[in-house]
Amino acid sequence: RQHHTISTEKEPLEVSVNLRINKIYNINSVQETYQIDGYFMYTWKNEEAISYLKDSTANSIVFENDKARELINSDLWIPAFELINVQGSREVPNIRIEIYSDGIIEYEERFFATCSTNMDFKKFPFDSQVYQVAIEAFSYGSKKIVFTNPKLFLEKDHEDYLGEDWEFVNSDAHVVTKTYKYMDDSINSEKNSYSRVIFEIKAQRLSGYYEWQVLFPLLIIILASFSIFWIKEFGSQIGVGFTLMLTVVAFNFYSASILPKLPYNTFIEYVIIVGYIFIFLGIVAVIINHRINGEEDKGDKIPLLKYFRYLFPIVYALIMIVLYMSLIV
Amino acid sequence: RQHHTISTEKEPLEVSVNLRINKIYNINSVQETYQIDGYFMYTWKNEEAISYLKDSTANSIVFENDKARELINSDLWIPAFELINVQGSREVPNIRIEIYSDGIIEYEERFFATCSTNMDFKKFPFDSQVYQVAIEAFSYGSKKIVFTNPKLFLEKDHEDYLGEDWEFVNSDAHVVTKTYKYMDDSINSEKNSYSRVIFEIKAQRLSGYYEWQVLFPLLIIILASFSIFWIKEFGSQIGVGFTLMLTVVAFNFYSASILPKLPYNTFIEYVIIVGYIFIFLGIVAVIINHRINGEEDKGDKIPLLKYFRYLFPIVYALIMIVLYMSLIV
Amino acid sequence: RQHHTISTEKEPLEVSVNLRINKIYNINSVQETYQIDGYFMYTWKNEEAISYLKDSTANSIVFENDKARELINSDLWIPAFELINVQGSREVPNIRIEIYSDGIIEYEERFFATCSTNMDFKKFPFDSQVYQVAIEAFSYGSKKIVFTNPKLFLEKDHEDYLGEDWEFVNSDAHVVTKTYKYMDDSINSEKNSYSRVIFEIKAQRLSGYYEWQVLFPLLIIILASFSIFWIKEFGSQIGVGFTLMLTVVAFNFYSASILPKLPYNTFIEYVIIVGYIFIFLGIVAVIINHRINGEEDKGDKIPLLKYFRYLFPIVYALIMIVLYMSLIV
Amino acid sequence: RQHHTISTEKEPLEVSVNLRINKIYNINSVQETYQIDGYFMYTWKNEEAISYLKDSTANSIVFENDKARELINSDLWIPAFELINVQGSREVPNIRIEIYSDGIIEYEERFFATCSTNMDFKKFPFDSQVYQVAIEAFSYGSKKIVFTNPKLFLEKDHEDYLGEDWEFVNSDAHVVTKTYKYMDDSINSEKNSYSRVIFEIKAQRLSGYYEWQVLFPLLIIILASFSIFWIKEFGSQIGVGFTLMLTVVAFNFYSASILPKLPYNTFIEYVIIVGYIFIFLGIVAVIINHRINGEEDKGDKIPLLKYFRYLFPIVYALIMIVLYMSLIV
Amino acid sequence: RQHHTISTEKEPLEVSVNLRINKIYNINSVQETYQIDGYFMYTWKNEEAISYLKDSTANSIVFENDKARELINSDLWIPAFELINVQGSREVPNIRIEIYSDGIIEYEERFFATCSTNMDFKKFPFDSQVYQVAIEAFSYGSKKIVFTNPKLFLEKDHEDYLGEDWEFVNSDAHVVTKTYKYMDDSINSEKNSYSRVIFEIKAQRLSGYYEWQVLFPLLIIILASFSIFWIKEFGSQIGVGFTLMLTVVAFNFYSASILPKLPYNTFIEYVIIVGYIFIFLGIVAVIINHRINGEEDKGDKIPLLKYFRYLFPIVYALIMIVLYMSLIV
Repeated sequence: RQHHTISTEKEPLEVSVNLRINKIYNINSVQETYQIDGYFMYTWKNEEAISYLKDSTANSIVFENDKARELINSDLWIPAFELINVQGSREVPNIRIEIYSDGIIEYEERFFATCSTNMDFKKFPFDSQVYQVAIEAFSYGSKKIVFTNPKLFLEKDHEDYLGEDWEFVNSDAHVVTKTYKYMDDSINSEKNSYSRVIFEIKAQRLSGYYEWQVLFPLLIIILASFSIFWIKEFGSQIGVGFTLMLTVVAFNFYSASILPKLPYNTFIEYVIIVGYIFIFLGIVAVIINHRINGEEDKGDKIPLLKYFRYLFPIVYALIMIVLYMSLIV
Repeated sequence: RQHHTISTEKEPLEVSVNLRINKIYNINSVQETYQIDGYFMYTWKNEEAISYLKDSTANSIVFENDKARELINSDLWIPAFELINVQGSREVPNIRIEIYSDGIIEYEERFFATCSTNMDFKKFPFDSQVYQVAIEAFSYGSKKIVFTNPKLFLEKDHEDYLGEDWEFVNSDAHVVTKTYKYMDDSINSEKNSYSRVIFEIKAQRLSGYYEWQVLFPLLIIILASFSIFWIKEFGSQIGVGFTLMLTVVAFNFYSASILPKLPYNTFIEYVIIVGYIFIFLGIVAVIINHRINGEEDKGDKIPLLKYFRYLFPIVYALIMIVLYMSLIV
Repeated sequence: RQHHTISTEKEPLEVSVNLRINKIYNINSVQETYQIDGYFMYTWKNEEAISYLKDSTANSIVFENDKARELINSDLWIPAFELINVQGSREVPNIRIEIYSDGIIEYEERFFATCSTNMDFKKFPFDSQVYQVAIEAFSYGSKKIVFTNPKLFLEKDHEDYLGEDWEFVNSDAHVVTKTYKYMDDSINSEKNSYSRVIFEIKAQRLSGYYEWQVLFPLLIIILASFSIFWIKEFGSQIGVGFTLMLTVVAFNFYSASILPKLPYNTFIEYVIIVGYIFIFLGIVAVIINHRINGEEDKGDKIPLLKYFRYLFPIVYALIMIVLYMSLIV
Repeated sequence: RQHHTISTEKEPLEVSVNLRINKIYNINSVQETYQIDGYFMYTWKNEEAISYLKDSTANSIVFENDKARELINSDLWIPAFELINVQGSREVPNIRIEIYSDGIIEYEERFFATCSTNMDFKKFPFDSQVYQVAIEAFSYGSKKIVFTNPKLFLEKDHEDYLGEDWEFVNSDAHVVTKTYKYMDDSINSEKNSYSRVIFEIKAQRLSGYYEWQVLFPLLIIILASFSIFWIKEFGSQIGVGFTLMLTVVAFNFYSASILPKLPYNTFIEYVIIVGYIFIFLGIVAVIINHRINGEEDKGDKIPLLKYFRYLFPIVYALIMIVLYMSLIV
Repeated sequence: RQHHTISTEKEPLEVSVNLRINKIYNINSVQETYQIDGYFMYTWKNEEAISYLKDSTANSIVFENDKARELINSDLWIPAFELINVQGSREVPNIRIEIYSDGIIEYEERFFATCSTNMDFKKFPFDSQVYQVAIEAFSYGSKKIVFTNPKLFLEKDHEDYLGEDWEFVNSDAHVVTKTYKYMDDSINSEKNSYSRVIFEIKAQRLSGYYEWQVLFPLLIIILASFSIFWIKEFGSQIGVGFTLMLTVVAFNFYSASILPKLPYNTFIEYVIIVGYIFIFLGIVAVIINHRINGEEDKGDKIPLLKYFRYLFPIVYALIMIVLYMSLIV
């Protein structure tokens, strides 16, 4: 009797899946990846397995690591499962296969995997992201293996399994059927249909770092840039304007290093772009004022600077509010 | 009967190849590499394989991972295929070999490989690139193994298998015969000829990031640099000129970090070089004006600054248009 | 007689654990990880093991590396232990299993592991951290295996096993029982309960680097910023103010690179934020003074600058003292 | 009859070596390393091997990968070769051993190795480098194994196997005898003598990147620095001088990041050092002029600036020419 | 007769060790590590080994790689040695075990290891460092295995096995006995005593890079900072002072990136700190002068600047000399 007898069964094998996540770490916004330290537990029933317990009085028998690998390579049928949204092989330091006297087989592994997901940074740094883990059987379509009853456990006893800068929102686990057109030319072929489990954890970024290290200094600098309308000397006005532009360039390059090269602009990048524009307009404004009113401030023909003193901060505040409203709220 | 009987066959074995690409990720412009997460499926016919099914009533028999590796190491002949344009070994977390009752052998593997290709950055950041995967049999020339019917599948259900900053243009899969002069001294020797499958995906870079984070600030800065002709004080003119030169140096070093050390200039580098030249010429212009007309602006002998105010932006705009026309369009 | 007989025992197996730490290195504050080079020694008694010594006259028999791995894979029951707070598999260059004539089994391994812990940086760079190593049996709950008598040894002969910038404070080793709700639906099930050993080393950061390379220059710069109240020219005042703001931005980005993106502010970041605010207020102060008193310093209406000369340093010193008192002491 | 019979032979075994280089990539000037993607083919004659073909009618028999490793571990003697100038183990994704009916054994492997060589950067970025691969038998001295007839093939069909920034100059392959004093205390002992094959590819750096991204901006900046002698205001002179010094510091740090920490100066570093000196001398010159002639330019006592206007550029040009002549030509 | 008979011997086994270092590379001052490419050769006598040669007429028999690993796993006793000051496992691309007809066993391996040592950077960049390799038997104390006659060979034919920026000073190899209190509770127990070989290479850093890329520009900048006492305008004095402070900040951050976060200051950091202080004092000095003597230089009350012109350089030179004398000489 061979180990491939599963192939002749009428009904697909039901495999229930538990995922316990110990930690989600190295969340990498630039590459849109994160590493997961967790435990998978697959459970199914195979009455042939009972024979492994026949000369034991115990309720179950445990196979660890190399012994488990030997078991997988033996006649007992233990299918391979694969992570779909993974980058490279997962590391599996420990495996346990336990066979119970009722034919239940429990396959458990601790794993470390680098997963990827598509992140939406439009609201960055006030964004939420969904960390996903998707699993399929590698060789057996939904005609042979279907997943049931997926459960996701999060390690609660160290609160920050997500890192200190993320806050758990909610989680989900569900089973879908995924159709490929790759395995067989006929799209409706049973070979093209696979059962997939999707585990999802939604988390909210804690934006304290970005507020204090990026947005606060940027706002201070933009605020300070409005001081050029309170300065009377043209030379100082111009010097301050260009020094501030150089400073915004520094923030530009910094924000460029913490996110991928996105084709769209994030909230933080809009703030920087608006900063560029306001500093540029400030320089243009003082030059226009200078051309019209001249160097000395005795009897300005048009009190442009006085208007700008209020116009610039008000328009800037309005734009920031609109930006915040339309992107974040 | 040995496993090397293939060597005595008259006709080369026909192997059809499917490649399903799950994701192209970590596209690295500096090293001209990209990582591919995908599935290879090689299919061929070998009637000797039928014996593996003889005591089974099923239509096919599956060998996964270690069992598949054992099969490769057994008498059944399963050739090794190699990626040509790869860097280092590919990772292969799962293998499936399925033998059908008509002697068809299906070898499937999920793989993660770092591939390289020659990228042309002349139009950067408005460039397109061709992501390529090339395959050959490792030990058997085109006299023994020929590829037929290559098919390339792209995972459509997550639209951005290419990353968010690339847009699919087209794809292709074809078979060529590659001739080496390495295997045998006689160049025409059959030993030097190999069948090669080439899969190609052409993609267009979405340049939003570079437009807003590099080109936009650069243009703002060059624009601002023309303000020196509207300033009357020589000291401010000179100070602004050199502050802006320092700012362009910052962009220079940034653009140097996102591309390889190319012997030619890209579009973005031309923009920076033209920026250097215009700021330099602006400094020269205000010095010449100062030497001719002196500090005070009462009755300039030659109204140089007035000419420059229009000359510089117009010439700059013309150069930018020519640059854009000749490189990008 | 099978190797899983442990499963039928009444009393849990008592395993004593020694950890000798050779070096804690690559302490990475950004990822909150550290690498440990050490030796684990697990000791327990199994009278079945005596049979391995029966044809030897020696007191004990040693199995190294591959021989030890072969032994683990044989009938003798040697359980797998796992590091809980590890990232990826640990490297194990050498294993020794020694069986003594009284049935004592000694399992020793040298290991290199990347561990993680939650670090609290609020007092940074005057912080202490606790470096932890937590161990559990992988497959066997506290009903089967309990740890006893954990001992932690630190390699004293090279004093700086912790790196030169950390000073040992104290260490601890203790056993706890950890309850999961993952293994079994019933939370009180014995399957959910595991014996865990926790080793802890508390260390104090030697802050010399941060004092001299970050805090000292920052204080010099803030101090120098107060010089603007001793300058009479408005142009110089403004120029100095903005140059200093650019310098604080540089420190901001530097401090951003040495710590994770924390949602809270550390001591060093408070110093930088207060720096931003004081330089900003300094700029505001000189502008207000300039508006009130005009350019020339002949007969100021209100001697604002004279007040600021003393007000700013005193308030700054007070804030620094309060900050230091509330955060560090 | 054992597999070590080679040890009793009178004449050393003659092994011919072919190296086909597919790509030299990741050329790292900082660590003086480069990665090689290539194929080694070792060929020798061993009449004992004929027995492997005895029940085959084919002309040769192929062993791939695991089958080849099994063959190496069998009685047939297949020696190990080592790369001398490698860093870490080479990756070998595929191995082929082919035994021909005349006793010829062909061992081929595809390999990926990180090699190192001593690079001479004195002429950088106008330098040439020699990429080397050196091979020896690991266990057998020149009494047992000698290399003959080494051949080096370069993959011509993608022209830039060397990367786009290097141009092939010439290549070479030769056999030398290397003497160690390590294996045996007697230096003249046969044990200390090994046959070594050295493959060498000389390539010229295409310096376009460095010319346009480093040398061109540097020259523009030095040129601009001579403008201080055309400025009449002392304040602007001094301001420009120090801003330019800050800019040269930026180039200094950039050039420091692209090369190892060499004890000698490269061409590019000489250009930077001369830049520092000229900007420093320019500052000294304008101060001296200011002390002698005073602020206002009415009737200078000594027209120093006029002399400097021509003296500085001429001396700078001369030094650059001498530098270029003595280092590069 | 089992392979563990060594355990019953009266006298410890004498093992002589040769280390040939091919290259010390990737010397990493920040992590205080270096990689070693070398060959270990362990030689000892075991008369039981002679049986492996009994059906051979040769003088010795060689086991390479997998065959050697098979031999280690056989009955012949070949102990495992471990590197003490290593980080992670060493890579071992090739192993040779040669058994001679007189029972001498030669175990040779090529290895690549990342070693660490405590570096003293107080004199940096004029420092010397000791590169160390320490070896112990993994399982057998000095009662079972003692090392004798260690020899260290350095590959002389490429002079810069240490990299171009280090110069060999001297080398040493000696055997010590290391006592642990870890293996046994009784500190004097034989189990706690191990024989250790220590290989040491002392090397002097060639400081050319740091002299020309860091110290020279820094000195130029400090020198240039004294120019503020030759400038009469207060505005220029202040502007130059703060621009130079920003430049020293750049050097500060650069020097921070090339060394670990040391609790003490190195020579280069003292130079930077003194630079900060002198630029700060220079700013204070010109402000004091300005307060006392006013803007215009007609008839200074106290010729402070004239004193400072000589006082500052002299004091600076004295401090530098004292620093150099006390730290370096």
